[in-house]
Amino acid sequence: MQEKPNPVALRMLKQRSDILENLKGIKFKIAVMSGKGGTGKTTVAVNLAAVLSRKNSVGLLDADIDCPNINSFLGIKERFSVKGENRIQPIERFGLKVVSMASLQEEADTAIMWRGPMISTGLNSFLQNTDWGKLDFLVIDMPPGTSDAALSIMQNVDLAGIVVVSTPQGVALTDASKAINMAKKFNVKVLGLVENMSGEIFGEGEVESLAKKLGETFLGGIELRKEIRQLAEKGLIAVNESREAEKEFKAIAQIVLKQLGVQKNG
Amino acid sequence: MQEKPNPVALRMLKQRSDILENLKGIKFKIAVMSGKGGTGKTTVAVNLAAVLSRKNSVGLLDADIDCPNINSFLGIKERFSVKGENRIQPIERFGLKVVSMASLQEEADTAIMWRGPMISTGLNSFLQNTDWGKLDFLVIDMPPGTSDAALSIMQNVDLAGIVVVSTPQGVALTDASKAINMAKKFNVKVLGLVENMSGEIFGEGEVESLAKKLGETFLGGIELRKEIRQLAEKGLIAVNESREAEKEFKAIAQIVLKQLGVQKNG
Repeated sequence: MQEKPNPVALRMLKQRSDILENLKGIKFKIAVMSGKGGTGKTTVAVNLAAVLSRKNSVGLLDADIDCPNINSFLGIKERFSVKGENRIQPIERFGLKVVSMASLQEEADTAIMWRGPMISTGLNSFLQNTDWGKLDFLVIDMPPGTSDAALSIMQNVDLAGIVVVSTPQGVALTDASKAINMAKKFNVKVLGLVENMSGEIFGEGEVESLAKKLGETFLGGIELRKEIRQLAEKGLIAVNESREAEKEFKAIAQIVLKQLGVQKNG
Repeated sequence: MQEKPNPVALRMLKQRSDILENLKGIKFKIAVMSGKGGTGKTTVAVNLAAVLSRKNSVGLLDADIDCPNINSFLGIKERFSVKGENRIQPIERFGLKVVSMASLQEEADTAIMWRGPMISTGLNSFLQNTDWGKLDFLVIDMPPGTSDAALSIMQNVDLAGIVVVSTPQGVALTDASKAINMAKKFNVKVLGLVENMSGEIFGEGEVESLAKKLGETFLGGIELRKEIRQLAEKGLIAVNESREAEKEFKAIAQIVLKQLGVQKNG
């Protein structure tokens, strides 16, 4: 006797296939993760996307549903337009196609108090209903942690890999290891680790040591300096304004491209 | 005709009353929140608890279920002991009673990949089953965001108030406002705002300006300096080791006590 298919499992499979179908015009989907909050995932996601966009078409998805920060980093204040049957049109900014929950909010400081299942629903809706068109890269800025959003992305998106961002602090390194272990459980490639806020205050070289210990690739470091914060507050992208930032992120992008098997394209 | 009571609502009410019953020996429950990750909630929670514990009995609950960092900050490597029918015994360290998910993990770098409902279940279990005994204060270190853990704590714990931690960066300020708006929706008192990582790199004075704008209390600032990170990496509490940190946190604790109506007790 055949067992009846489980309706929840069926719905999840249908959703996954809808998402894969909707994202099939995008060559490489890269998630920027960290485990710990405040390590600079958004900084890395935005600047990596900007460097890649110089020779490629690039989308940027803010997967932080309750505290979305991408729009603030890019000075975006517009809300989405929706075409046809619920198709979200990304906002174009600095040559990037951007989707963030912030483009659905009336007020930036309203708390989005959704429980996990709603977070996943919101995120899956972005994955299913956004008109990305054809893209070379989609950079996904993940929220902290290894819970709902991270699970949804790893389960539903055919990621080319993850970029792990950590500061040199001990607790950030532990949480970065968690993100890496999570990726391994889902058979997602770890493209490499970035050391952010490198310098005297938080330390230096620790992320490279962790990468070595775990047998992963070290992508490079970003020095802790105020210009990166100041440019973000103005809604400007550091790599477009600062030679130093450009040099740091170009080096990171080159190794990411090499890891993806794409050469001389960044 | 009377409607049948909704079994889910009944279960939630029962859980809430079990939690209130279990925590009734604790005078003041204070949640340390921020919205954005990496603003230094754990630093503030640990040091505030340590200052308060000089003249009071204090518990410290790590409400970050998937990336718990309290044990690392306090150098705790022990696991819980459980007495009787599933009663968790907090770990005693530096005079504090500490409960963290990390005390249930075999390996610190294993990812806890729970979806939201499991996060809430884990957290509620700590709230229901911990033997805190009689305490003057319970300091709760919240995870980033305004989702599951924050909702569970605000719904189930009779908080005396929240302490909001923000760096002076624009995005942290926006997310701090979200945490404050969330507290207001739950009628939870905002004890005040702390500016962490104050200084040249991230800025200075912005959190005090935000407090003024929102009509809330500014509790004080903590300067960005490497000793705070270095002491935490050694499992030591900054206020016990550094005069400067002690001065900063004593000032914060004094205002918190005043806000709670407790005088000359910190």
